[in-house]
Amino acid sequence: MDFAPIDRVYRDCVNENVPNVTVQRLPVYLSCLESLGTERERVSSEELATLAGVTPAKIRKDLSYLGTFGVRGVGYDIEHLRFQIRVVLGLEEEWPVVIVGVGNLGRALANYGGFQEHGFDVVGLFDADPAKVGTEYDGMLIRSLDELGPTIHESGATIGIITTPASAAQATAQALADAGIKSILNFAPVVIKPPGDVDIRRVDLSTELQVLSFYLHRRGVDVE
Amino acid sequence: MDFAPIDRVYRDCVNENVPNVTVQRLPVYLSCLESLGTERERVSSEELATLAGVTPAKIRKDLSYLGTFGVRGVGYDIEHLRFQIRVVLGLEEEWPVVIVGVGNLGRALANYGGFQEHGFDVVGLFDADPAKVGTEYDGMLIRSLDELGPTIHESGATIGIITTPASAAQATAQALADAGIKSILNFAPVVIKPPGDVDIRRVDLSTELQVLSFYLHRRGVDVE
Repeated sequence: MDFAPIDRVYRDCVNENVPNVTVQRLPVYLSCLESLGTERERVSSEELATLAGVTPAKIRKDLSYLGTFGVRGVGYDIEHLRFQIRVVLGLEEEWPVVIVGVGNLGRALANYGGFQEHGFDVVGLFDADPAKVGTEYDGMLIRSLDELGPTIHESGATIGIITTPASAAQATAQALADAGIKSILNFAPVVIKPPGDVDIRRVDLSTELQVLSFYLHRRGVDVE
Repeated sequence: MDFAPIDRVYRDCVNENVPNVTVQRLPVYLSCLESLGTERERVSSEELATLAGVTPAKIRKDLSYLGTFGVRGVGYDIEHLRFQIRVVLGLEEEWPVVIVGVGNLGRALANYGGFQEHGFDVVGLFDADPAKVGTEYDGMLIRSLDELGPTIHESGATIGIITTPASAAQATAQALADAGIKSILNFAPVVIKPPGDVDIRRVDLSTELQVLSFYLHRRGVDVE
């Protein structure tokens, strides 16, 4: 008889109830908690709020969906909270991912420390350029798109990352969907129409720059 | 006698009143509007909401801070709205930026289409590696960190982008602050303590992957 591990039971229990807006803030909280290091034991909602750029009330509300409540005057146990967020986000498991488009950005992501640390394991690199196919980057073979299906099947990859030029992104998303991928992270500077029931999230690397330029304006810094 | 251009007057007028949470969504709306192309004239708050992943009520509320109201049954004028958001975010002006750390990610950002398109102009590449200093990437000279001050002074750069390894990020932020930079975008997988009154925003490239893994769980996709 098998028993589900306790972290799995906990996760399944809270997973349904976490609102989408909270889900998007959990990685930010996790990153703030990680920045506190391993020497300290506790953090107040006020301090965590300052680090994350939200209000303490929002922190308390968001974490209450995880069944976690800070102790007044004592705060949250950092290690426990970190573990809880990791479990809820699914980061205590391994997620094999494939990357399509081995340009500068694809290569940067292939050995980005932040991926491995959170359980994202790059299991395949793909490129349409015949000159790259068959060569290696960082010890990994670069394959042709024809091999997407078999590689995804063998590795059990569930997430595909698109780092192609904008013009190739839509066709790449279709190829990933055809090969069985259910979730796509798109770094190409273009909006992709989801093929079928595939979940697509886009990372626009200029978004945060746009926010910075807004605040530079407000501070009255002008370049003219 | 000089008159301020009309877009400047408009921007200064609304800039103070836009809440921080709205500021962070404006780049997302802009990206959605850009995805609609130039052939269509109008978009409803419902359609824009679907593209942006928020509620139509939130769209209407956010855009009301810009003094923009859709017409019932007609929607928003796409081109006008795009222009308004660009003005408020300061994207109708040029923002010279410098990049420190010319690894894969630094190179990817140096010619990222999404930057130029939004007025961010890379005017300097810097690296601590003597083997890279003096060489060129994409027609741009890679300089040593000693040259940060003069380059920033001459180019009027106000934004610095950090794409160094995590271990070098804090010292790089300090060097950028010493050279007069007021806003920093940090891509290194580490949290930087702001030197002085410098505004720092961090891009964690794994954040969106963490959100994807949450939803994969909820969909019951498991890799074990």
